Amino acid sequence: MSVITIERKVLEKNDEIARQNRQLFATHGIFAINIVSSPGAGKTSILERTLEHLRGSIRLAVIEGDVQTDLDARRVARFGVPAVQIVTRGGCHLEANLVRDALASIDLTGVRLLIIENVGNLVCPSNYDLGESMKVVVASTTEGDDKPLKYPTMFRNSSVLIINKIDLLPYVNCSMSTLRSNALQINPSLKVFETSCTTGAGIEEFGRWLVEQASSKR
Amino acid sequence: MSVITIERKVLEKNDEIARQNRQLFATHGIFAINIVSSPGAGKTSILERTLEHLRGSIRLAVIEGDVQTDLDARRVARFGVPAVQIVTRGGCHLEANLVRDALASIDLTGVRLLIIENVGNLVCPSNYDLGESMKVVVASTTEGDDKPLKYPTMFRNSSVLIINKIDLLPYVNCSMSTLRSNALQINPSLKVFETSCTTGAGIEEFGRWLVEQASSKR
Repeated sequence: MSVITIERKVLEKNDEIARQNRQLFATHGIFAINIVSSPGAGKTSILERTLEHLRGSIRLAVIEGDVQTDLDARRVARFGVPAVQIVTRGGCHLEANLVRDALASIDLTGVRLLIIENVGNLVCPSNYDLGESMKVVVASTTEGDDKPLKYPTMFRNSSVLIINKIDLLPYVNCSMSTLRSNALQINPSLKVFETSCTTGAGIEEFGRWLVEQASSKR
Repeated sequence: MSVITIERKVLEKNDEIARQNRQLFATHGIFAINIVSSPGAGKTSILERTLEHLRGSIRLAVIEGDVQTDLDARRVARFGVPAVQIVTRGGCHLEANLVRDALASIDLTGVRLLIIENVGNLVCPSNYDLGESMKVVVASTTEGDDKPLKYPTMFRNSSVLIINKIDLLPYVNCSMSTLRSNALQINPSLKVFETSCTTGAGIEEFGRWLVEQASSKR
């Protein structure tokens, strides 16, 4: 029971800093998303394809979270976007104070869109508010269609679901309709995109939606 | 800093119970593996194919760990194997006390092999000893070849690596040799199997190895 109490205190402190981050985003008119998924679901690949698509159309910044390396920030920086890497050194999720510290090293002038890529983990990041406008959960078809039922908190706390790797559907044991209905059973208000970073399917639609959301924040 | 202290206490208590579990396994001559991976890497599918292959050749039991459902234990029970489901209710990893409680409901007489399937998570289960003989980490080709570098603790603390979904190699951006060399760079003593649950490749070899390990424990 003591562990639960402590966890609660950690979350309360996190939520307070998340509120400050959210206030900062509101002040600057920034739309901020927190992308979450299993390791290897394709968060960074979706981000790369989206950055390619959005190039020049909107000012944005990226915060990358990783357990150990800065591989992802290096992938993103190739697109000429301000990218800060948070290395959690074993930590299984980002916390609001880490994002606050990362924000301090970004020039937010004119930035309309902030994309935070969380550590690859379908469990722990679900309970940590970073101050984002919404969570975007990525589920890849290769993971199977039962993941929303097995990891419900993440799907419940997200506003958007990106079903990625749809090009692999012919080769994997995953029913698109079952995956969709499992996700919507957990969270009926999920907005769903279907993407493939190999073919580029769905990226334009997702990019356009991001720009619309960011425009409506101004 | 207080969080770190508490975490250390939790781990110390866990390690004490893990030692008791390990002693129990030694008394019964049981070879116990703790299978870990990202969600959707194929732990349960590998288990199903392996159980099919081992049917009748060795007495075994299965403990399933999941955040919310008993879907996996139901999949495993179809093979006539004693299977206990631990539902962590949001918890991101199994702990030794949960395994101890699950063991209390299994008749261990004659059991030679215990397979524990952990919660799908490449971060948190790496630090929790359950008393197993060894950890087996599953990495699927669809997750990409950089995961050993990004989640090194899990690969460092495992003795065996199963590279799964090798049938999808033609369709994904994953180099088998890079994945292998990244894994062996983190942990040079990893024993590596390559499997596909679709074609059945590698399952017989993995099953034979399990039986050999279990036989050497008697």
